[in-house]
Amino acid sequence: MNPVDHSTGQHGRIDFAAVLGQVHEEVAPLVGQGKVASYIPRLADVPANRFGMAAATLDGRLFTIGDADERFSIQSISKVFTLTLALEALGGDLWKRVGREPSGSAFNSLVQLENEKGIPRNPLINAGAHVVADVILSSSRNARDDLLAFVRERADNPDIIMDAEVASSERDAGFRNTALANFIRSFGNLDNPVDRVLDFYFHQCALQMSCADLARAFVYLANRGHCQRSGKPVISAERAKRINALMLTCGTYDAAGEFAFRVGLPAKSGVGGGIVAIVPNVLTLAVWSPALDDKGNSLAGAAALERFSALTGLSIF
Amino acid sequence: MNPVDHSTGQHGRIDFAAVLGQVHEEVAPLVGQGKVASYIPRLADVPANRFGMAAATLDGRLFTIGDADERFSIQSISKVFTLTLALEALGGDLWKRVGREPSGSAFNSLVQLENEKGIPRNPLINAGAHVVADVILSSSRNARDDLLAFVRERADNPDIIMDAEVASSERDAGFRNTALANFIRSFGNLDNPVDRVLDFYFHQCALQMSCADLARAFVYLANRGHCQRSGKPVISAERAKRINALMLTCGTYDAAGEFAFRVGLPAKSGVGGGIVAIVPNVLTLAVWSPALDDKGNSLAGAAALERFSALTGLSIF
Amino acid sequence: MNPVDHSTGQHGRIDFAAVLGQVHEEVAPLVGQGKVASYIPRLADVPANRFGMAAATLDGRLFTIGDADERFSIQSISKVFTLTLALEALGGDLWKRVGREPSGSAFNSLVQLENEKGIPRNPLINAGAHVVADVILSSSRNARDDLLAFVRERADNPDIIMDAEVASSERDAGFRNTALANFIRSFGNLDNPVDRVLDFYFHQCALQMSCADLARAFVYLANRGHCQRSGKPVISAERAKRINALMLTCGTYDAAGEFAFRVGLPAKSGVGGGIVAIVPNVLTLAVWSPALDDKGNSLAGAAALERFSALTGLSIF
Amino acid sequence: MNPVDHSTGQHGRIDFAAVLGQVHEEVAPLVGQGKVASYIPRLADVPANRFGMAAATLDGRLFTIGDADERFSIQSISKVFTLTLALEALGGDLWKRVGREPSGSAFNSLVQLENEKGIPRNPLINAGAHVVADVILSSSRNARDDLLAFVRERADNPDIIMDAEVASSERDAGFRNTALANFIRSFGNLDNPVDRVLDFYFHQCALQMSCADLARAFVYLANRGHCQRSGKPVISAERAKRINALMLTCGTYDAAGEFAFRVGLPAKSGVGGGIVAIVPNVLTLAVWSPALDDKGNSLAGAAALERFSALTGLSIF
Repeated sequence: MNPVDHSTGQHGRIDFAAVLGQVHEEVAPLVGQGKVASYIPRLADVPANRFGMAAATLDGRLFTIGDADERFSIQSISKVFTLTLALEALGGDLWKRVGREPSGSAFNSLVQLENEKGIPRNPLINAGAHVVADVILSSSRNARDDLLAFVRERADNPDIIMDAEVASSERDAGFRNTALANFIRSFGNLDNPVDRVLDFYFHQCALQMSCADLARAFVYLANRGHCQRSGKPVISAERAKRINALMLTCGTYDAAGEFAFRVGLPAKSGVGGGIVAIVPNVLTLAVWSPALDDKGNSLAGAAALERFSALTGLSIF
Repeated sequence: MNPVDHSTGQHGRIDFAAVLGQVHEEVAPLVGQGKVASYIPRLADVPANRFGMAAATLDGRLFTIGDADERFSIQSISKVFTLTLALEALGGDLWKRVGREPSGSAFNSLVQLENEKGIPRNPLINAGAHVVADVILSSSRNARDDLLAFVRERADNPDIIMDAEVASSERDAGFRNTALANFIRSFGNLDNPVDRVLDFYFHQCALQMSCADLARAFVYLANRGHCQRSGKPVISAERAKRINALMLTCGTYDAAGEFAFRVGLPAKSGVGGGIVAIVPNVLTLAVWSPALDDKGNSLAGAAALERFSALTGLSIF
Repeated sequence: MNPVDHSTGQHGRIDFAAVLGQVHEEVAPLVGQGKVASYIPRLADVPANRFGMAAATLDGRLFTIGDADERFSIQSISKVFTLTLALEALGGDLWKRVGREPSGSAFNSLVQLENEKGIPRNPLINAGAHVVADVILSSSRNARDDLLAFVRERADNPDIIMDAEVASSERDAGFRNTALANFIRSFGNLDNPVDRVLDFYFHQCALQMSCADLARAFVYLANRGHCQRSGKPVISAERAKRINALMLTCGTYDAAGEFAFRVGLPAKSGVGGGIVAIVPNVLTLAVWSPALDDKGNSLAGAAALERFSALTGLSIF
Repeated sequence: MNPVDHSTGQHGRIDFAAVLGQVHEEVAPLVGQGKVASYIPRLADVPANRFGMAAATLDGRLFTIGDADERFSIQSISKVFTLTLALEALGGDLWKRVGREPSGSAFNSLVQLENEKGIPRNPLINAGAHVVADVILSSSRNARDDLLAFVRERADNPDIIMDAEVASSERDAGFRNTALANFIRSFGNLDNPVDRVLDFYFHQCALQMSCADLARAFVYLANRGHCQRSGKPVISAERAKRINALMLTCGTYDAAGEFAFRVGLPAKSGVGGGIVAIVPNVLTLAVWSPALDDKGNSLAGAAALERFSALTGLSIF
């Protein structure tokens, strides 16, 4: 298999099925290494030995391997969906309420929030996602249904659901998120009641999707904001580009620099063990393996993305 | 003028001369806005109304506009050259002594250094550049001459010099850098005497180069590590890609997220008002305008890069 | 009037009535300067021009001036009462859950709490008081009634109440305290439900007492832990001494060093404008004036304590 | 032996010789526990099993036990002497350049200095002592000689010296102090060259004194600012009181709260293993034992002061 010839841009030559197979083989020894998230039972119960991966190309092909059709809790990956909706709702004014810089510290840190007077560093950390959730609540009659409809449409799968038990468990264990949301509220940067914001937030995290669902759902970010099936814009090309930039600098907690260095692709991870990555103008990737490294990213998943990039030469750098 | 067609990768169609002309025109009202660095006389004396820009393509063409041939003090842009040399000298072991994460705070902050026990966040902040300088000093008989030779070769210009007066002024005003280097030394992360490290560091910052020089000199980072003229590798493709990733996440002080969001290109700025940016597989850009925004990046320079990206569609996202 | 002769310890010679009169006169121009706490209506409505002061000596005399019999919301002064109760309940084990160091930053900071893994710096900041409240809740069938009974007994005044409206307003506006308590809970350092802890905390802050009440109520801290009336121990002499030490180093938010420097007495302030101070072995002082300085301490109240110390020579230093 | 009767202030009854004997016996098992400072050879070479203690009363008596006449490096205890001199030189204007609040973090932290723009938290941490040294250098023709003369006069011992080898070793190992001083200079809060400030600072730390010397030298702080022998003022009673307040809140690094809680006396410690403590209007204490606890205070020394206070009832609280 030849890596892509960048001078011509002809990615069509790459045999993605073969690449996924090779990636799977190479990372197999890593699957199960790390630690499955254990703060709620539903996450803790997922077997550590799962691994799935999917790639969706702009010409409509889908490649999958392993447990790519098994649904898991997408958790923080949902922040990219809600950011998309909030940008559509509020436009550039969103940036008055949330920043665009890497956080440089743990994903749920209250420190920066205090120094920066309730303006979260970026929309992809928990604090920022609370503000994004608040924006959606203010602009939608039924925020939860609207989000679900958007995600189903993007993934072309009407069966996607939010797992009510996961949402409920998150709430019961969510002291840190409750602290965060109250703290933001104390600075006046939430308009809706803290309970409503948290309820929406815990439900978005409880979306259950497979790698195949996720790879399809994010094609608009690789496709300059357009739906691959209809050709119609989901968001503007400008916004798609900017969401990708945010994913690169802020999408993998405080390991974003390391991730950019190793993988070289915009990506967003979740504690459920999923990671999505975007190769602009080419394809999207979704990978899942529940055991996490010490930064909270899927250990085998990150390795799989790194290998995929190395084998194909696909990287934004 | 049509923006590039990414699906074919045929950037050759873009009339870069025309783009630079349009960018120049559009940012003209911004030139002189902001504040010229004033902590040393040689920088303070540079007229605020200068603006130059250069683009060097992988096929060997050079496009320039405005004061693109006027030399200025490249300051922190030099950190990319020294990082390249230190990586060649030490390989991956460099990452035991310096991190790869965005700093999330002001470029000369001692706070993170204290929290992280003398391991600077990344090689593109001052603290990290001190460690990089220390690595080069340990691996080279005459570090200053070796750096100069490397830069002259990259820029294909034997007349490039280090301005001794700038270096000397930096040293006299360099209390913060002296503090930083002593602090790192207190953690045992410098092998050479603090004075030697600082002397080398202040000399690297005192490199005088024009936009044309810089655009040419950095072509290897757009060209998968290879020299455009000789076709020979300067560094491996892997390292070139990783340096680009570091520039994107860490190259513009604590505005890296914002810069990625607005411009969407790996870049490195200096307080002399210069910024270089890389469009992998296509070209390099160098822009110079001395007046800085409140984050320490050239105000008109950043705007010029943003406009260039918007007009050509060239972006990594 | 002669200041006390320390070499003989004969404080009896001081004419405290005259001193209070002189203090009142001297600080009159300051009364109303500063800013009355405005985050809840009940506090905001208190006229800024109030000033009262009381001194209770170990030999049973009470001296008062101005509005010394007007009740106000004692707010954080209550933390000394609850600390006393928690120490009786848990003994030295309390110090496994809360520290004894000055906070060095704003009284409601979450930063140190994060760095120090949910162990509040000391029991006199909000976070520490939440832990103290939790201890009392775990050791008492009816914590609120027990606290009220204790305070009434100390002040020898059965009419003291908690203002339910103040407690309720605090709760509605208490996003920061809610954040704090959830944050502590996330580290496992609260045993009772967050809502119960906050309910008790807001009620303790809502105690309504006059300067006369407070001066009497705290005599045990000046009297080596003993009740002045009955001669019986309230707490051990050792604990009384240690509570005084905590008041000196931690009792006036992040102005404790300044307060020790200017006034030289263990003290605890509240945002209602009250301050109590202890002169060990001699007397207690309580002062009230609602307008606060920028550190959150009563501006005229702090000045009155400073003048009292200067006029009498009574200081621990 | 009866503890002092505070109601009469008649401390004369206490048999201080017997108390010191008992303290010595009680802390004997602790002597040598902890870790002798090892960053310079001269300190590292001091045997860990030394213990000495001295008490100097206001009526001119001196009580000693153990190695109370052996000289050691007083290190940070010298900061109280220089603070006294700087206050005499600059008066209240000193407080424009240095604060009066506990630092709340490690004694050589650069973090607060950065947050607070080069104004050290208090004069008893290293950064503050640099500013104090700078003030003395600006007001004295020969700062080192003037300090030595002052200390000899206070201790009534013309043989006290500064150990040049200690000063020189400190300088060679003093990367952290060099960092601090350069950092302060970068904010414009040093008037003299960094090298001069550090030279003076390292020499003040190198003062060699015994417990007997120190107990005598600090009597002015227990004696309302007056020399016990001549009866003349060294500083005003007001300043003596305020220096005591600073020692209580800031004198034992980031263990000041703990120290006040356990010992209840204004104190200043040094990494040489010495601690001085003040009982206002009664006496001074000096104790020495080289092995330090994890906060950098003499482990056996702190225990000795705690026992002394418990046995005599002498405490400011």
